[in-house]
Amino acid sequence: MRTLHRAIVTGATGAVGTALVRVLAERDIAVTVLCRPGSVRRENIPQHPRVRVCFADLTRLREAAVELDDSCDAFFHLAWTGTVGAARNDMFQQNKNVEYALEAVELAASLGCKIFVGAGSQAEYGRVEGKLCADTPVFPENGYGIAKLCAGQMTRIACAQKGIQHVWARILSVYGPYDNPNSMVMSGISALLRGECPRYTPGEQEWDYLYSEDAAQALLLMAEKGKSGMVYPLGSGQTQRLKNYIAAIRDAVNPALPVALGALPYPENQVMYLCADISSLTQDVGFRPRVSFEEGIQKTVDWAKGR
Amino acid sequence: MRTLHRAIVTGATGAVGTALVRVLAERDIAVTVLCRPGSVRRENIPQHPRVRVCFADLTRLREAAVELDDSCDAFFHLAWTGTVGAARNDMFQQNKNVEYALEAVELAASLGCKIFVGAGSQAEYGRVEGKLCADTPVFPENGYGIAKLCAGQMTRIACAQKGIQHVWARILSVYGPYDNPNSMVMSGISALLRGECPRYTPGEQEWDYLYSEDAAQALLLMAEKGKSGMVYPLGSGQTQRLKNYIAAIRDAVNPALPVALGALPYPENQVMYLCADISSLTQDVGFRPRVSFEEGIQKTVDWAKGR
Repeated sequence: MRTLHRAIVTGATGAVGTALVRVLAERDIAVTVLCRPGSVRRENIPQHPRVRVCFADLTRLREAAVELDDSCDAFFHLAWTGTVGAARNDMFQQNKNVEYALEAVELAASLGCKIFVGAGSQAEYGRVEGKLCADTPVFPENGYGIAKLCAGQMTRIACAQKGIQHVWARILSVYGPYDNPNSMVMSGISALLRGECPRYTPGEQEWDYLYSEDAAQALLLMAEKGKSGMVYPLGSGQTQRLKNYIAAIRDAVNPALPVALGALPYPENQVMYLCADISSLTQDVGFRPRVSFEEGIQKTVDWAKGR
Repeated sequence: MRTLHRAIVTGATGAVGTALVRVLAERDIAVTVLCRPGSVRRENIPQHPRVRVCFADLTRLREAAVELDDSCDAFFHLAWTGTVGAARNDMFQQNKNVEYALEAVELAASLGCKIFVGAGSQAEYGRVEGKLCADTPVFPENGYGIAKLCAGQMTRIACAQKGIQHVWARILSVYGPYDNPNSMVMSGISALLRGECPRYTPGEQEWDYLYSEDAAQALLLMAEKGKSGMVYPLGSGQTQRLKNYIAAIRDAVNPALPVALGALPYPENQVMYLCADISSLTQDVGFRPRVSFEEGIQKTVDWAKGR
């Protein structure tokens, strides 16, 4: 068990990052958020007496050590550029993210961090059917997944070289406040709130969705108790059919609204079953998701209504 | 079958690169070698009327297009920095190599190349026992292997985006003139030529060695006939016990010399069997090694004597 007093978080403006900052601060851990200068999402960062924001360029993260005079216990590296759309296959940009991750390790070492927790992705596996485990073979199919894989592998060795422990979370589908507006969950909520009828495939896919606060709890537990060198697939560990998720989204907005299931064909090579094997995560750190999909969606809808 | 009239080669000063330039030139293909300014190994590049050397910085490869006014058919990207010693785990350096490979794709596109052949490595697989196939799961264990894997995956997609065909050779142990002086073969030859008694493990490992000229022939065949998108493990496809290789090296220098087999213990986690599965390579491009180990070693010893 590593005791955390101070933590650094990069990538704190997204769904997982905002939840993580809040979870850490509520556990009375002092959080320094590293935020890109000029970030348009800066306002997403939770305001809390234990949270301090420091602006730092991802390309020169190690220089932030000068400003951060205190030592830190844990480094959560969630920052990544080019996470959606065509940028996912901009290879130069994706490869730059690997360098940013290595910069993060340099900074973690300067600050005396004991543990580095990195945010990987299900995209590292590529198009796999079945339960995703740490040792499931990886065949990433886009630049984003390739670079996440490379960053996880390189930061593991870089941390070992510096005596920092390392865990890597391969995150499956997470939803919640501050999620990407084009995600399945958020685009569905937005369409329904606008009075539109969202269009879907038949929805027989069995997928694994995790609420952002549960993901944040898991990352904190990994920092406290994760086994160094481990890769942890991070999801709820359970699946539902996509049509059930869609029904829950609709019900949270207004049960009377229509959704067009079957209006779209399945994409070519659609993955029909995807689930994180969280048995090693549960065993090593005691993680169990606490928020049901219905509850998480209701929170997300409430948040979306307030925007 | 792609007809090659003009080719670009990077990394032309090593064992495979020098052999490749010679093989291409002897097939009457015009070769432009891209060489780092100030390269101390520049003199290794074969001199031949069909070979032209052009100096270019790996970080700005695409700028070389200005000097290379003619279009090209094939781009062979073999250049890599930090291939031996501690540099293999210098993550920033290894990650830079990925960027250089992406620069190479940019240049290949500028020059109208039809096919991009990249030099990967057995290190992409990590510590695997058995026959190495294109779809053998990869668990690279050092920065060099991680970056080679990433470069292969990223350049494949980058080439697809630009309409360039792509093959990636995962090269096992190659020996021959201009090989790294610390390799098993070359260090053994050097020691024996100096009159020293080289020290080895018991030598029961079954490994796969390929002569550099055969490797070069394979790369040329991949450029001509390789299936786009393929990964080809490249070795002889056959193994011998390491002690037999060592005996052949000794015999080529002087059969009367002693070698100290068993003087060293096996390293921890020693891989005892390693062999390229070249069945798809043979089927797709018709590659078969032509040079026996004894013959290749004799050529290498003759070359080493002349140095």
